[in-house]
Amino acid sequence: MKTEFSFIEQLRRHSATSKIGDDCAVILKDAKTDLVLTTDLIVEDVDFKREWMVPEFLGHKALAVSLSDIAAMGAKPIWAMLSIGIPEKIWKTDFVEKFYDGWFGLAKKFGVELVGGDVSRTPDKIVIDSIAAGETKKGKAILRSTAEPNDLIFVTGSLGGAAVGLELLEKGERFDKQNYKTALLRQLQPNPQTEVGRLIGLKNLATAMIDLSDGLSSDLSHLCRESRVGARIYADKIPFYQKSNSDPESFNEQLRFALNGGEDFELLFTVNPKKKKRLENNLKNYQISHIGETTANAEIMEFIASESISVLEPRGFRHF
Amino acid sequence: MKTEFSFIEQLRRHSATSKIGDDCAVILKDAKTDLVLTTDLIVEDVDFKREWMVPEFLGHKALAVSLSDIAAMGAKPIWAMLSIGIPEKIWKTDFVEKFYDGWFGLAKKFGVELVGGDVSRTPDKIVIDSIAAGETKKGKAILRSTAEPNDLIFVTGSLGGAAVGLELLEKGERFDKQNYKTALLRQLQPNPQTEVGRLIGLKNLATAMIDLSDGLSSDLSHLCRESRVGARIYADKIPFYQKSNSDPESFNEQLRFALNGGEDFELLFTVNPKKKKRLENNLKNYQISHIGETTANAEIMEFIASESISVLEPRGFRHF
Repeated sequence: MKTEFSFIEQLRRHSATSKIGDDCAVILKDAKTDLVLTTDLIVEDVDFKREWMVPEFLGHKALAVSLSDIAAMGAKPIWAMLSIGIPEKIWKTDFVEKFYDGWFGLAKKFGVELVGGDVSRTPDKIVIDSIAAGETKKGKAILRSTAEPNDLIFVTGSLGGAAVGLELLEKGERFDKQNYKTALLRQLQPNPQTEVGRLIGLKNLATAMIDLSDGLSSDLSHLCRESRVGARIYADKIPFYQKSNSDPESFNEQLRFALNGGEDFELLFTVNPKKKKRLENNLKNYQISHIGETTANAEIMEFIASESISVLEPRGFRHF
Repeated sequence: MKTEFSFIEQLRRHSATSKIGDDCAVILKDAKTDLVLTTDLIVEDVDFKREWMVPEFLGHKALAVSLSDIAAMGAKPIWAMLSIGIPEKIWKTDFVEKFYDGWFGLAKKFGVELVGGDVSRTPDKIVIDSIAAGETKKGKAILRSTAEPNDLIFVTGSLGGAAVGLELLEKGERFDKQNYKTALLRQLQPNPQTEVGRLIGLKNLATAMIDLSDGLSSDLSHLCRESRVGARIYADKIPFYQKSNSDPESFNEQLRFALNGGEDFELLFTVNPKKKKRLENNLKNYQISHIGETTANAEIMEFIASESISVLEPRGFRHF
């Protein structure tokens, strides 16, 4: 059966300039500027459950996933559009108003303007399409496809928190004043890495970049495939999400969440070793972790744990 | 209960530059060019039924509705994105390939490039979000809000065909080699007025423009509200869709389809009387009909039939 990735590969052949297949499309805006564009479809009961969250969280997350794509291009977000389809019984409540409150809360933080959208009825599920655009200097958008062998691999923040949160939600926990677990917020109200992504772009610090939406193992495999490189990752260098107010998971569980849990919306990027010092100076106010390096062994991901080597398979989220 | 229109009005207050509420948002592209942007959400069992059409028609129509919005701004379409959510059982068929065949068929006709998109799973219904962008000279996009009293009101093509087609589909008729009714095609595979819209924009022929997606009575009311004008429409000047190979409907039925049936995707535009000659010269290769005029009687639509005057109410399509 075709995967969503093989299908996108097929579509690509229609696009003369290969704009398809990165976190964002890159198109010329004017003589000095590129526009980067992304669209993300979010579907009830596939991407979220209504009972998990207040509408404000959903509005926030709808924009956050698109801003994360823009951050992964090293770009500055500028405008957005939003299409929302909802059942009539939800339309009659204050759901959309609260949803937009969440959306505008995040938009204002980063100066993103809502320029358009569409409102439609659906038979029974909520559907959202989030569209956003950013800007970079011409030719300076950071792609997935430009890593070189022997680059250093970095990630921002910590990994696995959103997957821990997802598991808690699936077990029936809900976020409220009595249950203020940060893992729940990591899943429900993720923070896009807009500032650090923009800084990496402005200062030209990375050879390639992708956001961690499907999970480290899958997103790293996308970057390796597009760049025709391999990767070597060290288990003990991965910045695990530390559960803040509950029992710690076992190491293996933490590893599974970090490698295969999606929706952390951190950034994964590759750096020329000569730029390591510059990177650390420029990003000293942000948490970044050096977790491995790229190799010439195209598309093979090696995983080093306790001095043994295994092959890392992409086991993150996919729709099909 | 709030309508989708009152809700859009509410959103508008968040947008400093009032980009929301027209067929497209208008944003600055570069010193000489504006970008116009539109997004349209299309939902199975609300906007179409799967058994009505082959996937190629749906792909064509998904792009056509967005190109129609761009035509209504007097702009030239340039690129598009497409988000599609489909149930797993349809993913396993050749549905998406055929859908994209239809999409690319129309895209190639007008030189529109697919630059990005998203593929997602849905529980059971197909959902499509069509995003498209066009260009106009800076400040030259034709809005809904700039008609003046005593402008002439024109429409392109003929009206009501898509509604006739919808009725045939709902009665169980299907388009195939044995049943090649043009009304079915008007509904299933509409033609956006890309060339004439672009020409009206380039030659600066209209004071205001909107596409006929909800139905003449509703779309005219949107234009009147935004422009703070009224309108007077003559029943005998409306270019009814003529059923090509079945019994003609009664005059009243034709009128109902033309006024309140949506999805004709023709253009409705207003013209300064001084430009009437210029308009007719420039558009002599296209069917256009002068159906009435705007008035100073803000938001009141008068309808003249057999020398009696009545008030025309917007009775076209709305989601809520």
